[in-house]
Amino acid sequence: MTAPQSGHPSPRPRGVFAAALTPLRDDLSPDLGALLAHYRWLLGQGCDGIVCLGTTGEANSFSLDERLALLDGLAGSGLGDRLIVGTGCCAVPDTVRLSEKALEIGAAGVLVLPPFYYKGVSDDGLFAAYAETIERVGDPRLRLYIYHFPKMTGLDIGLALIERLIAAYPDTVAGLKNSSGDWANISAMLKAFPGFDVFAGSEEFLLETLRLGGPGCMSATVNVLAPQTAELYRTWQDEGAEARQERISALRQTVSTVPPIPAMKAMLARQSGNQAWRNVRPPLVRLTAEAERKLLADLAAMDFALPAAA
Amino acid sequence: MTAPQSGHPSPRPRGVFAAALTPLRDDLSPDLGALLAHYRWLLGQGCDGIVCLGTTGEANSFSLDERLALLDGLAGSGLGDRLIVGTGCCAVPDTVRLSEKALEIGAAGVLVLPPFYYKGVSDDGLFAAYAETIERVGDPRLRLYIYHFPKMTGLDIGLALIERLIAAYPDTVAGLKNSSGDWANISAMLKAFPGFDVFAGSEEFLLETLRLGGPGCMSATVNVLAPQTAELYRTWQDEGAEARQERISALRQTVSTVPPIPAMKAMLARQSGNQAWRNVRPPLVRLTAEAERKLLADLAAMDFALPAAA
Repeated sequence: MTAPQSGHPSPRPRGVFAAALTPLRDDLSPDLGALLAHYRWLLGQGCDGIVCLGTTGEANSFSLDERLALLDGLAGSGLGDRLIVGTGCCAVPDTVRLSEKALEIGAAGVLVLPPFYYKGVSDDGLFAAYAETIERVGDPRLRLYIYHFPKMTGLDIGLALIERLIAAYPDTVAGLKNSSGDWANISAMLKAFPGFDVFAGSEEFLLETLRLGGPGCMSATVNVLAPQTAELYRTWQDEGAEARQERISALRQTVSTVPPIPAMKAMLARQSGNQAWRNVRPPLVRLTAEAERKLLADLAAMDFALPAAA
Repeated sequence: MTAPQSGHPSPRPRGVFAAALTPLRDDLSPDLGALLAHYRWLLGQGCDGIVCLGTTGEANSFSLDERLALLDGLAGSGLGDRLIVGTGCCAVPDTVRLSEKALEIGAAGVLVLPPFYYKGVSDDGLFAAYAETIERVGDPRLRLYIYHFPKMTGLDIGLALIERLIAAYPDTVAGLKNSSGDWANISAMLKAFPGFDVFAGSEEFLLETLRLGGPGCMSATVNVLAPQTAELYRTWQDEGAEARQERISALRQTVSTVPPIPAMKAMLARQSGNQAWRNVRPPLVRLTAEAERKLLADLAAMDFALPAAA
């Protein structure tokens, strides 16, 4: 299958995408200056792009207005075509509005959760939600990635649903972020839909994804593992790729022994000296001092050091 | 434990609450006229109040603006103090804004889901989300019901969390809607917190809830079982109460053999002659004609007939 994507001004995204953290001020409002600095630092570390306002970016803890304002704040940054913007809400009208805003700021794509409040819904219902989103946006520039994250949504996105969406909207439905954490599920999608860009939701599966012709990964832990992951992406066909993958997977595993969003925010607070980096929105909570000490000790024992802030 | 609720102009709600359906026009916008007629019909059938914009009302499929507009539309209805309004969103700022609007229209209370996107979060995180909501609203008239619906949220609301919330906000945290479907869980809450209003999330548990001193039920299927449920509430200490409960439970069971929101909308479309009643928002889908025929045959075999529309 091929998807000509004729309406798109930018090439199809490939490579390593950080599902970027959102730095907050002490009043828990987004700190746009720190956010831009972090996005630019990640790109400088070798990331090919940024997932803005995904799960890791605490997107669903921000109101629609806050999300629209944050995207407006990115409009003049020159980063537009490096961004894939999380726009999937429970309510289709909100998903539509955020997706329109993502187009307005020149984003390379949108990453769209299925409407995730109701459970046990049918493929027909999920298809209708995506179809209504695409048709209401009604813009040939829209490049949509399905966001499959069953642990958070409680919903399955199966092969039959993906096939229907690609068939109905081949110029729009460009790919999928698979955050199932299950290689059998990721590889089944890669094999079923060649040319459809199934990104692994974890850099743990980057090498295997590339070997099956996949485009790359979009991952939370790339916020702290960007150089390593970007190097693997550039050199995946070279000698030593498996060893590089193993080290990345081991580091990711260590960061994931604690809740990764607060953990990475704590790491960035230390690196930058900006203690506000520790702020998270409820229902997330900060890492305890004890968990932070243990994490840093574990990472130090692996000879890991976060590169300096920009 | 007692909760004086001193800031509240209205008495604490008790009795049978229909978690009301939201009728939609063919463009899937809420039909305020049909909604008001339905609410008034339910009250006329004996309901003590209405849960407006809960799960059954497809609340999470409406944008914040649509929900605010719907509440504005109820402002002049005279129904304010009969309403408990679902206001719980993933993002605390949205929950705050809807709760403020509910107060503005004189609602008797708000029913608040925990922020339900992130899973595996701590009690500290859920407490922080409720605390921030209550403190940002900052109004002594706020009467908050925790909404426990683990099948939809993927989150547990345990006794320790409830105890903390009551202790911190005794004048605000008035009760809970327990939609676990698990009598062991409901009864544990009723026993742990006398004076805290634990509503059963299903009329199936109405009699047992009242016997344990609970206030009543808030339930989806009361949209079609209002007279029977209201009668049981009025006569629960009289002879024959168990038989009345058994019939209600059997009818509820039958309606729940198919997805209950589309099923009840189909029943109301037939009753009212307004075919738009069948409309649902994605990710829900309409009941198939075959499922509808079977449901109606099953209910007819139980000598059930929906009362005429107003």
